[in-house]
Amino acid sequence: MHFGPEDLTHDAFLGGKLHLWQPRKGYRAATDPVLLAASCPAKSGQTVLELGCGVGAASICLRSRIDVHLSGIEVQPAYSELARRNASEAGFEMEVIDADLAQLPAELRARSFDHVILNPPYYGPGTASPDEGRDTALREQTPLSSWIDTALRRAGPKGCISIIHLTDRLGDLVELLNSRAGLIEIKPIAARAGKPARRVLLRAQKGRAARTILHNPLVLHDGLRHERDGDDHSQAATSILRHGSSLEF
Amino acid sequence: MHFGPEDLTHDAFLGGKLHLWQPRKGYRAATDPVLLAASCPAKSGQTVLELGCGVGAASICLRSRIDVHLSGIEVQPAYSELARRNASEAGFEMEVIDADLAQLPAELRARSFDHVILNPPYYGPGTASPDEGRDTALREQTPLSSWIDTALRRAGPKGCISIIHLTDRLGDLVELLNSRAGLIEIKPIAARAGKPARRVLLRAQKGRAARTILHNPLVLHDGLRHERDGDDHSQAATSILRHGSSLEF
Repeated sequence: MHFGPEDLTHDAFLGGKLHLWQPRKGYRAATDPVLLAASCPAKSGQTVLELGCGVGAASICLRSRIDVHLSGIEVQPAYSELARRNASEAGFEMEVIDADLAQLPAELRARSFDHVILNPPYYGPGTASPDEGRDTALREQTPLSSWIDTALRRAGPKGCISIIHLTDRLGDLVELLNSRAGLIEIKPIAARAGKPARRVLLRAQKGRAARTILHNPLVLHDGLRHERDGDDHSQAATSILRHGSSLEF
Repeated sequence: MHFGPEDLTHDAFLGGKLHLWQPRKGYRAATDPVLLAASCPAKSGQTVLELGCGVGAASICLRSRIDVHLSGIEVQPAYSELARRNASEAGFEMEVIDADLAQLPAELRARSFDHVILNPPYYGPGTASPDEGRDTALREQTPLSSWIDTALRRAGPKGCISIIHLTDRLGDLVELLNSRAGLIEIKPIAARAGKPARRVLLRAQKGRAARTILHNPLVLHDGLRHERDGDDHSQAATSILRHGSSLEF
């Protein structure tokens, strides 16, 4: 599979600071990779590996905030090609490795990273959608346990793992991480104040005393429901999504 | 060990609706058992087992809201004696079994309950305090895994487990429950709005599709800090702690 020019859109991220090529019909990055990037507490000069980097949205958003060394793994060559193109057009270096995260090449298995970031597929195996690429990006063909196992192995002894996922899967994530990661921090993401958080950011830090911290939710939209036309993002969400600020837990 | 009259206090709970005998120097129930009782979604006529019931505070608070059948396990006879006395003086029947929850009598191992509630010790094994009873109630002499294992075994096929614990231990609780319980619901308890939740209520329901729900925090106190004398409980907290309302997730 390869995307031709007519298959692509060029979309603005971070209030137009970045433009990324994405497949018109495939998996399309929206707010999740931006929130994931904003939540990663990387410092300048550190190494970051993204598992399942797609077109590179999370990594490139992160790089536009901090000068880190980017590496990404992507199983679908049509997406990894776009990740290389997007990074290059943004003026950033990004190493994009064509690999299945459950079967990493030996040279990658010998490396560790300061940060591992991941936005695993949200939906379990099920009926295939007509778009194979979108399906691979959205459906859990690789079990969540492989994602977490690879993240834990590739994070260095004090490495930090940042994840965004559906809150539905929080129990599974914590079960997989708790005995192997030290500090676990949970940041719920709620669409509106008072609504249960449907998505969650999870940060696990190896080499820290085992403990869980449950932070207050990030609320994305003002008001109790969608009442006015256009953008009703909260100030915190606007700062992250449009101005590229970091997301503090 | 046995408490004499001079060792006891008679303390008001639920705005004076209940009075419970407690050891002056031992483990003293405060808001946690009341919150635990308020969070248990038991219905009239159902059976409830409390693990480590102490003087019976959680069970008796629950019974004063709903007509359930109470059973409790307590390893310290001086406490189980008070639980029987407290239940009786409140006009309720409560079966209190002197047993170590890690070594239940065979007849109890043959029974299951609609609800299991527990408020396990908050602190790990460490330097013993001068008060042995308080130490047993507060320190984790029985590992958390035994508490959760017993709760899961004694809850019926559709049984519900309600727990209050430090948020620090949320990862451990979820790790122990996730693969054996179905639905897991998390309700953070924050002292004040915007503060991280130090305690957490966790509800696990067997026989339900595996999924995690992360609810909005219950905020106990109004304002950003303790600024005025006396009671600054939030309306929600007052309703639960003083008027005996249920705690809705």
